[in-house]
Amino acid sequence: MCDTCGCNITPANESPYAVEVLKGLLDANDHEAEHNREHFERHGVTAINLMSSPGAGKTSLLEATIDALGREMSIAVVEGDLETENDAERIRGKGVPAIQISTGNACHLDAHMVHTALHDMDLDDVDILFIENVGNLVCPASFDLGQHRNVALLSTPEGDDKPAKYPVMFRAADLVLISKSDLLEVLGDFDPETAERHLRNIANPAPVVEVSARNGAGMDAWLDWLRQEAGVRE
Amino acid sequence: MCDTCGCNITPANESPYAVEVLKGLLDANDHEAEHNREHFERHGVTAINLMSSPGAGKTSLLEATIDALGREMSIAVVEGDLETENDAERIRGKGVPAIQISTGNACHLDAHMVHTALHDMDLDDVDILFIENVGNLVCPASFDLGQHRNVALLSTPEGDDKPAKYPVMFRAADLVLISKSDLLEVLGDFDPETAERHLRNIANPAPVVEVSARNGAGMDAWLDWLRQEAGVRE
Repeated sequence: MCDTCGCNITPANESPYAVEVLKGLLDANDHEAEHNREHFERHGVTAINLMSSPGAGKTSLLEATIDALGREMSIAVVEGDLETENDAERIRGKGVPAIQISTGNACHLDAHMVHTALHDMDLDDVDILFIENVGNLVCPASFDLGQHRNVALLSTPEGDDKPAKYPVMFRAADLVLISKSDLLEVLGDFDPETAERHLRNIANPAPVVEVSARNGAGMDAWLDWLRQEAGVRE
Repeated sequence: MCDTCGCNITPANESPYAVEVLKGLLDANDHEAEHNREHFERHGVTAINLMSSPGAGKTSLLEATIDALGREMSIAVVEGDLETENDAERIRGKGVPAIQISTGNACHLDAHMVHTALHDMDLDDVDILFIENVGNLVCPASFDLGQHRNVALLSTPEGDDKPAKYPVMFRAADLVLISKSDLLEVLGDFDPETAERHLRNIANPAPVVEVSARNGAGMDAWLDWLRQEAGVRE
């Protein structure tokens, strides 16, 4: 009962019925994610889930990564977007197989979507599979896809406070990339140390690397991290 | 049944049971949003829902708006974030009442959260209520809060392709603000005409205004739009 206006409204999403159904969806997702992970490991594939806000530079980072690492390792990409095939086309332009998942209204990839996409991909020759999640700093963090590692991009124009404001995402990150580092000087109000401090405040000890796909700064550290991850599951 | 691996997985979120529950949540939200809207109209309040990616500049725009319009109109703000009271504190620093809603894990505001926040706010003296939604270019668009108008910010560093990639959000917008227009020249790869073309392609005739809270460009057009909206419900 609402005190102000006397209406009889209670929050629908707190009903035991709704909570049970939503928990069931997450449980089913976790089950299918485990299945994906077994699939990856049977083929010696390292799966990396890339998450960020829209336009933080995930696809540009992948293009630069393929340019730098494409002769050394075999790369494949699963792209998630509500609409358009644009990102998959950019990746294919680099000579790398890419499957686009169009989620429609859905704000994140889930394990079933990735599972279905894998049917169209030959994993035998793949060393690293990048899963570029839907641009969203909240929901993707709650849905395991079967990946081995989560990488969160924080682009400099978004502000250095984001790990404090989006703790669910940044707590889930195994590596944080501060992307668009070439804009640091122009912006003048993003302090990488502040971003890192906010990350430590939510108890995440993950490494933080500043990168720019535009001028190549920091790419070596990112590539070394990838080489090490892929080496573990060779 | 999965053809590749013979497992027995079906997508949990497509079960009739889950679909019915999720539809029930949205219906309950719409009912409560209508209630909020009646509440606003009884008090002559114009409610504006601000939506964008994280870090697109919603709070900075509100600060600049309060500076420019604060003597002419009475403004109040409801702030939505997963965590922190930072944005509400910035707004209160401008001498305007602000209520912070911490959504926890939730990726959007819903009508019930706004309804509850309104209990702590005296609407009698308010001309415009801004609701700053959680930074997220997907989910907030699906939850009516009782607002009169939706304003979507698209910041220049995000890229001019976003209306094509996030059509649910940009279809819902009554006004699109291209924010951080001061960075247009530095970035060099954001074409406002391309952004507008993508908006027209999803059949949205909404006005598009370039603004910079930093250097004040475009603020006059935004303020005029607000004056007109507030005038309708005076």
